[in-house]
Amino acid sequence: MIKVNAYAAYDATTPLRPFDFERKEVGPHQIQIDILYSGVCHSDIHTARSEWGPAKYPVVPGHEIVGRIVAVGSKVTNFKVGELAGVGCFVDSCRHCQSCLDGEEQYCDEGMTGTYNSYERGTNIPTYGGYSTSINVDENYALHVSENLPLEGIAPLLCAGITTYSPLRHLKVGKGHKVAVLGLGGLGHMAVKFAVSFGAEVTMLSTSPSKEADAKSLGAHNFALITDPAVMASLQNSFDFIINTISAQHEYATYLNLLRKNGTMVVLGVPPTPSTTPAFSLIGKRRSIMGSLIGGIKETQEMLDYCAEHNITSDVEVIDMSYINEAYDRMLKSDVKYRFVIDMASMKN
Amino acid sequence: MIKVNAYAAYDATTPLRPFDFERKEVGPHQIQIDILYSGVCHSDIHTARSEWGPAKYPVVPGHEIVGRIVAVGSKVTNFKVGELAGVGCFVDSCRHCQSCLDGEEQYCDEGMTGTYNSYERGTNIPTYGGYSTSINVDENYALHVSENLPLEGIAPLLCAGITTYSPLRHLKVGKGHKVAVLGLGGLGHMAVKFAVSFGAEVTMLSTSPSKEADAKSLGAHNFALITDPAVMASLQNSFDFIINTISAQHEYATYLNLLRKNGTMVVLGVPPTPSTTPAFSLIGKRRSIMGSLIGGIKETQEMLDYCAEHNITSDVEVIDMSYINEAYDRMLKSDVKYRFVIDMASMKN
Repeated sequence: MIKVNAYAAYDATTPLRPFDFERKEVGPHQIQIDILYSGVCHSDIHTARSEWGPAKYPVVPGHEIVGRIVAVGSKVTNFKVGELAGVGCFVDSCRHCQSCLDGEEQYCDEGMTGTYNSYERGTNIPTYGGYSTSINVDENYALHVSENLPLEGIAPLLCAGITTYSPLRHLKVGKGHKVAVLGLGGLGHMAVKFAVSFGAEVTMLSTSPSKEADAKSLGAHNFALITDPAVMASLQNSFDFIINTISAQHEYATYLNLLRKNGTMVVLGVPPTPSTTPAFSLIGKRRSIMGSLIGGIKETQEMLDYCAEHNITSDVEVIDMSYINEAYDRMLKSDVKYRFVIDMASMKN
Repeated sequence: MIKVNAYAAYDATTPLRPFDFERKEVGPHQIQIDILYSGVCHSDIHTARSEWGPAKYPVVPGHEIVGRIVAVGSKVTNFKVGELAGVGCFVDSCRHCQSCLDGEEQYCDEGMTGTYNSYERGTNIPTYGGYSTSINVDENYALHVSENLPLEGIAPLLCAGITTYSPLRHLKVGKGHKVAVLGLGGLGHMAVKFAVSFGAEVTMLSTSPSKEADAKSLGAHNFALITDPAVMASLQNSFDFIINTISAQHEYATYLNLLRKNGTMVVLGVPPTPSTTPAFSLIGKRRSIMGSLIGGIKETQEMLDYCAEHNITSDVEVIDMSYINEAYDRMLKSDVKYRFVIDMASMKN
């Protein structure tokens, strides 16, 4: 067994605190990763606090994991000891439904196995995520990670990155398209970077004038203050796509009319209560609302390779593991540019 | 001037009653149609009763118009006296925006000119619709109508037909697709006919067991009683498309989970208050909700030609003009299979 140091939520209301547990030695198809960095995703908070249903405590969050391979199982063919590797939001799936066969394991008919707050498939062994010093994962659910980018900036690509990359690719966003990004956080800042990189004209929609400089420094071509009715009026029927990363309560109706004919609003966040959708806003211009969930292993690898080739990483604030509860508090106030990433060295000294 | 006998709503609350007015002689680009049949659409009721905002009374409803051409303007090239012709939901548009140039005048940036309850473009002359003995229309906004189908069954194609045909074509619905149709009325029965004709496997979703025989006689392959929780559970993740024709209050959430991965719910009806849309239902399977509005002139002609070739018409109950108020009452109880069509001979005797 492998001794692992971690931080866990023990219940919905108390701060995360240290949790030591053991992982099994690598199975024949698994790789063991010494975790170097673990991104902190808003989902971690939702899960730790049982905001998405009762969690399986103790919960070791973290699904933006990068590290170095320290062991490989006897049948592993695609990874070697000493290489970098990454793990995202899931570590297994049924492997036989059409989605799995299509390489879109995130839409697995039987449900993907979450990197944390789940059970190893067919067992009652809990899965523990990246707020820990080590993880084992089936090589089919691991990603190759470039040695050429700052590793802490790669970690958030495993969730925030692929969550924005996948719908932009699915919708073939590129040159000639006008894209609006709603919400400048972990997801939003990656949406700006990818949409700009794909050749689209990108507008940041924000409630805060102070975000203009930030958005432009990320590459956004335009900035629109959505609290200004004149600005909103001038933007009616403007965008081919809106990448809506807002998780707080909001109404889709506020933004749908900014879409052109055939425009699509991609919703990535899950507001606490459902948004209302006035049919006229959709019907009047054949507009759509589409949901999208992270990405499959194949597309996540494609995204990581794209990022390595185009020098794209997440903008992060590196923290020690012991800072996690303050980090959660600051995330809830959107006080981070744009992702906290835990330096796992802070757990090893 | 041409004397016209019509029925009009004079206000939001009293029954429709006779209204005589005059139309101008045909302009150089116009054709004059002696109206033979006029379909009765739910929009007529909404407008007559100011349910979609204050109407411009008197309102002569009717935008499912077929008749015979009795005069053509000096510059008309595409229509001849003696031919059949049709008019749908609009009689003009800006003609220069991208939507108009694309032949999708229904999405005109400046707004289409409605066949009724609108003003002739650039004037304050009201447009009066098909509950009348005669109409003039620019030849660019008129449709050719087959002599080979029962004319009363063609009238509803101008709205109910194109409203369902257009999204099915836009989404390339055909062989190998599973399509659910929600609501068996004027729109729903045409959605079944078109989706079946395009090769899809079609399921009627209904709250009433009595609709099963009706749905099957229209060509639906399957019937599902959506009030039965076991049926609903068995249909999760089943359909590529749901054609949602319901205008009554309902929640999209009830039906979204019936869609497969990448499935689309097409919304055609406008419930009185907006439906709620839980983001998880969209995100979990990359599902979409798309609105769609009638169709452009080019596609409407394509649809009429397709219907003529494939012997598709609307199932109608032909009524006299004087029956219109009872017809409205019955429509509000869904007591019609599936469209009332006014025989304009009843206005001429």
